[in-house]
Amino acid sequence: MTAVLRLKPKTERRIKGGHCWVYSNEVDIQQTPLKLLQPGQQVVVESASGQVLGRALVSPQQLICARLFSRNAQQELDRSWLVHRLKIAMSGRELWYPHQCYRWVYGDSDALPGLVIDRFGDVVVIQISNEGMELLRDDIVAAVDQVAKPAAIVLKNDGKLRAAAGLEEYVEVVKGELQDDCAPLVENDTRFMAPVIAGQKTGWFYDHRDNRARLNTLVAGKRVLDVFSYIGGWGVQAARHGASEVHCVDASAQALDWVEQNAGLNDVADKLHCWQGDAFAALKQLKDDGERFDIVVVDPPALIPRRKDIKAGEQAYRRLNQLAMRLLQRDGLLVSGSCSMNLGDDRLPDMLRIVGRELDREVLIQHLGSQGADHPVLPAVAETRYLKAVFARVLPTR
Amino acid sequence: MTAVLRLKPKTERRIKGGHCWVYSNEVDIQQTPLKLLQPGQQVVVESASGQVLGRALVSPQQLICARLFSRNAQQELDRSWLVHRLKIAMSGRELWYPHQCYRWVYGDSDALPGLVIDRFGDVVVIQISNEGMELLRDDIVAAVDQVAKPAAIVLKNDGKLRAAAGLEEYVEVVKGELQDDCAPLVENDTRFMAPVIAGQKTGWFYDHRDNRARLNTLVAGKRVLDVFSYIGGWGVQAARHGASEVHCVDASAQALDWVEQNAGLNDVADKLHCWQGDAFAALKQLKDDGERFDIVVVDPPALIPRRKDIKAGEQAYRRLNQLAMRLLQRDGLLVSGSCSMNLGDDRLPDMLRIVGRELDREVLIQHLGSQGADHPVLPAVAETRYLKAVFARVLPTR
Repeated sequence: MTAVLRLKPKTERRIKGGHCWVYSNEVDIQQTPLKLLQPGQQVVVESASGQVLGRALVSPQQLICARLFSRNAQQELDRSWLVHRLKIAMSGRELWYPHQCYRWVYGDSDALPGLVIDRFGDVVVIQISNEGMELLRDDIVAAVDQVAKPAAIVLKNDGKLRAAAGLEEYVEVVKGELQDDCAPLVENDTRFMAPVIAGQKTGWFYDHRDNRARLNTLVAGKRVLDVFSYIGGWGVQAARHGASEVHCVDASAQALDWVEQNAGLNDVADKLHCWQGDAFAALKQLKDDGERFDIVVVDPPALIPRRKDIKAGEQAYRRLNQLAMRLLQRDGLLVSGSCSMNLGDDRLPDMLRIVGRELDREVLIQHLGSQGADHPVLPAVAETRYLKAVFARVLPTR
Repeated sequence: MTAVLRLKPKTERRIKGGHCWVYSNEVDIQQTPLKLLQPGQQVVVESASGQVLGRALVSPQQLICARLFSRNAQQELDRSWLVHRLKIAMSGRELWYPHQCYRWVYGDSDALPGLVIDRFGDVVVIQISNEGMELLRDDIVAAVDQVAKPAAIVLKNDGKLRAAAGLEEYVEVVKGELQDDCAPLVENDTRFMAPVIAGQKTGWFYDHRDNRARLNTLVAGKRVLDVFSYIGGWGVQAARHGASEVHCVDASAQALDWVEQNAGLNDVADKLHCWQGDAFAALKQLKDDGERFDIVVVDPPALIPRRKDIKAGEQAYRRLNQLAMRLLQRDGLLVSGSCSMNLGDDRLPDMLRIVGRELDREVLIQHLGSQGADHPVLPAVAETRYLKAVFARVLPTR
């Protein structure tokens, strides 16, 4: 008999409305003590009156102590469910991105809480971040193998979420072999090798694909600066699509080595210039050197990791965008990214407004982008939406 | 000597922050009586302490009684300024949309308050909505002629805004001739004839161009329903891009005649089916007839024209989207549009969440689109951003 997690009165409303998280303070621990549950156990979630709300994976010691994967009380999260959901997730991606390079599974949005899977054609990279999915590890690998039949499967089980869940960190190639520890991919007609073993997260960030595609149409003949370039997602694509010159700035010398390698793959190495160093310092130095660009892309890592970081994080975004705006030509384009879920949608445009007034420039927002269709948003779960890309034309004040 | 409009203390902050509207209750009418100003007159706007904020066109009898076109006290709004701003506006469009079909001027965003200009290649359609621009009518036509040298120029001076400003309504071809009172245009590789004399607004809605481009990549082999089709912006493009069958619903028989004409221009008339009638009734009828579609587009006119209509308008959006969602296949795509500035960005996704729960369907937001880059947003003026397009995958509840 499946264990039950019973909620306190009136806490079921959010879940009935489509949310899929249970917070630990919502559990009626008199009736169903959290401490009696095993990490990763599957439970039936019930309202205070005993109405079934769905099935969930529990993490008894975490603030989000249960995540629903189904509204059906009988539904097991087993290999069969994994295969079923992997197929649904795949068809949702292939309609939008038919080249087999996409985020195949995006956790809660795909009814697979704690699981992220990125597909690079014949290479699949899996990231597991909770105990429930860790217990199903072999089933996940088998389901992936059954549905996609990839040449290689990697478990990239490292990162902060695992540490928070008390899970061991490890990276393992569980099927096949990789070429130079990388996976080849094509994004917007540009070739890359993603460092799926040693790189950040799964090795690549598919989430900005549509925003990069948009930028690619605007770069012909332009001088472009790509700040926080990582392995060249924006910069190499810009060079490939006709930018006259691209300068990539990143703190990691290794990332910049990959930029050069990826530039070479697309025959644009001669147009790429790499600057290793702190972004803030580099932007100041470029200004002091009198450099100007037609287009500046600033796409930092999340500067507001937690809600309490909002004030400091917003200051950092503002400062960065100010430094970036100063490097633009008289009529230039600033592409300002943020992957901070804690930064409100209207905040970046408003910061650009303020910075524009400070620098006596006029800011016109021409495009507001978000994460690609392979990172679908559950409208009930605001946390599933996080990415922003603001395309701002910066002119002299009217 | 240019007349002055002096503001009350502490009302200048919004304008200093980048806004460009003065409300009538912000004017110090003791110092500078609004009633002594002529409609359409150019004034210098000053703070209570006499600091120059910029130059504006006044509409003394309107709630928004002045709109800044420049921050420079010496700047005249004359033919030379018109030419200058038309050139800046044009270069901002041609970078994004190189085929000379775009909204060339978008009012305040282009420092030309009260002026909208749509360009259809060799045909330019001008809409003037305030007294200041009406006084400059001949200069506007001359400036357009100088910058774009079009074969035809139309003054499409009708609509609600003109009536509100007490301006005469008229439509006049002031240069050249039109073919069948229409202007040919190409949007996303699809040909259209826009009814620039008898159609809605300027005859065409460029604002959804990017959203239609996105949909075009998803329609191959699909059965598509286009509700509030107008002249086929979504539907004809979908047919042109491989939809197996497209059904257009509109209340206007004339609009549907244009749909058929535009379908013919793209050799897809055999795939297009038109239904004349009320959208709500048509959606119910289609359901009763057992019809199902892979993709439903619902892009109604603004259902929340004024702030006080929010409640009724949101109910209408919700009802429409519910009717639309019921017509989807088991795994379908709903494209839900809104051009209501008064509908918050998060409202449509939340309505789809609610409707999904009511119908026992799961809603995944795959894309959130907005207006194209030829409708640039002033970050200080929230009213310049109005368009939404939500792409939602609708599945059985997990």
